[in-house]
Amino acid sequence: MMPNPISQEQIQAAHQRIAPYIHRTPLLTNQTIAELVGAEVFLKCENLQKVGAFKARGAMNAVLSLSADERQKGVATHSSGNHGQALAWAAKKMGIPAYIVMPSNSPQVKVDAVRGYGAEVIFCEPTLQAREETLEKVLYKTRAHMVHPYNDYRVIAGQATCAKEILEQQPELDAIFCPVGGGGLLSGTALSAHYFGNVPVYGCEPEMADDAKRSFDAGYIIPSTNPQTIADGLKTSLGDKTFPIIRERVTDIYTVSEAEIGAAMRLVWERAKLVIEPSAAVGVAALLKHSANFKGKKVGVILCGGNVDLGKVGEIFKN
Amino acid sequence: MMPNPISQEQIQAAHQRIAPYIHRTPLLTNQTIAELVGAEVFLKCENLQKVGAFKARGAMNAVLSLSADERQKGVATHSSGNHGQALAWAAKKMGIPAYIVMPSNSPQVKVDAVRGYGAEVIFCEPTLQAREETLEKVLYKTRAHMVHPYNDYRVIAGQATCAKEILEQQPELDAIFCPVGGGGLLSGTALSAHYFGNVPVYGCEPEMADDAKRSFDAGYIIPSTNPQTIADGLKTSLGDKTFPIIRERVTDIYTVSEAEIGAAMRLVWERAKLVIEPSAAVGVAALLKHSANFKGKKVGVILCGGNVDLGKVGEIFKN
Repeated sequence: MMPNPISQEQIQAAHQRIAPYIHRTPLLTNQTIAELVGAEVFLKCENLQKVGAFKARGAMNAVLSLSADERQKGVATHSSGNHGQALAWAAKKMGIPAYIVMPSNSPQVKVDAVRGYGAEVIFCEPTLQAREETLEKVLYKTRAHMVHPYNDYRVIAGQATCAKEILEQQPELDAIFCPVGGGGLLSGTALSAHYFGNVPVYGCEPEMADDAKRSFDAGYIIPSTNPQTIADGLKTSLGDKTFPIIRERVTDIYTVSEAEIGAAMRLVWERAKLVIEPSAAVGVAALLKHSANFKGKKVGVILCGGNVDLGKVGEIFKN
Repeated sequence: MMPNPISQEQIQAAHQRIAPYIHRTPLLTNQTIAELVGAEVFLKCENLQKVGAFKARGAMNAVLSLSADERQKGVATHSSGNHGQALAWAAKKMGIPAYIVMPSNSPQVKVDAVRGYGAEVIFCEPTLQAREETLEKVLYKTRAHMVHPYNDYRVIAGQATCAKEILEQQPELDAIFCPVGGGGLLSGTALSAHYFGNVPVYGCEPEMADDAKRSFDAGYIIPSTNPQTIADGLKTSLGDKTFPIIRERVTDIYTVSEAEIGAAMRLVWERAKLVIEPSAAVGVAALLKHSANFKGKKVGVILCGGNVDLGKVGEIFKN
């Protein structure tokens, strides 16, 4: 058994560090969802977090962990999603530069959001190779500090503060359901659930992007190849820092279909009155699917984010 | 000056009575909205309340205030909206019958919701006269107890618990913005703001249904005549129990256009990640419109409900 790469004290320190900047998001119950599952269900509302996603936690912890020298040159990453916004937001809060490499086909609303936090956007071709090469050039030119969206212990420790909060808000829990993309949130959640409550953690993933499930079962990282899912935040593959924690500390990984994700998303919007993105519906969908194993239990579910294009909601929710 | 028809102690008693059944809804801040207004803005999330609206408070207080004899025969009302659901929910919680008169053209989703709480739905022609006559017949036949949606001191005392909670969650406030339809929530809010914090209260209303504004200015009730507004919860006219309280205790009433309501609704969905109904956007729209008067202040805004047909959201949020 490998030593834990992040200690309980490091997660506590991360929480103390970022607490002045982030929301302590509410943990809500909803009678309809509870009845459908047949369990007490606690929804951790990271859609109500700064920048609309848990990513604010990890990005802020990474920025606050930099030395004064490192901060001066700013931070950089490549991202078409919430991490780019989160890093831009954290950098703005600290008054340091941020450089975000984004694919040239990024939706204008996301580009505007990153620029709205004062970051410089550098466009590249929409391939992973182009993203990485462009970021290399930016790092070389600016000497900015790279903050990876998930494969970074400072980021993982930041994401771990979410489950730490859940267990402070509801100390008695029988399970935590958590979506998994690159594994930053899931690995952090598994560590906090272990340290602060010894609670089993279940990773939740779209069938159409089931690399975490396959990696978990195989015992080694199997990257995803061009996954197609409505849960666009969960398309990324596990990293060499997140996978070992997940392999050791996560109880199981459940997968759900696109239809199950859509139905769970509508359920949360309609009954819990929360705007969540498809990725955040994956945990609810997995709990509904496996409800037989959790009858009468107390289950936490992380609603990881709420960044969704309202202009496209009509298509999703057509009656 | 008339004596207050509802005492501080009665509101405290109502809160104690209903607390085991309702959510103590969160009071959230949102940076974007705060920056747009130039004030600290606190959103009271009654969209996250039981049945998705503050109406659960008043309905439950009315049901719990009945004698054992009265309870036995059940409760009745006419409603095409949130009060019908709230009364059905409260009756179900107490295990008593509920009879809800609804217009024959009510959306199926609302009929299903009321029936979902086990209430009996009685249809009538979609006119106020038909609703009242049908309810009379139901009351005669069932001997059920009528619970009016707003013109009832037990209901007003229940709605008053919302502002009481706001002032417990954020004792320092310079103003509270509250939507007004029949005036149950606004009169209750004005009483609690007076008793528990001496905070000025502003009523907020669609221009297209500005009977409260006109009544407030005139000094007597001017009913609305066939108002057309997206904020369907605010079409009703003031009652003889709500108006005197509003006239005496409310500082002013602000009106907003349909476009301002739509823009505020989108802002709250998109940035605060909360599903709110158009009526709940009216307070935010009014604060944005009159922000010049509240720079640097602390302002509470009641998001009164979140019951909206997701199938129609596409039209509202077309890009």
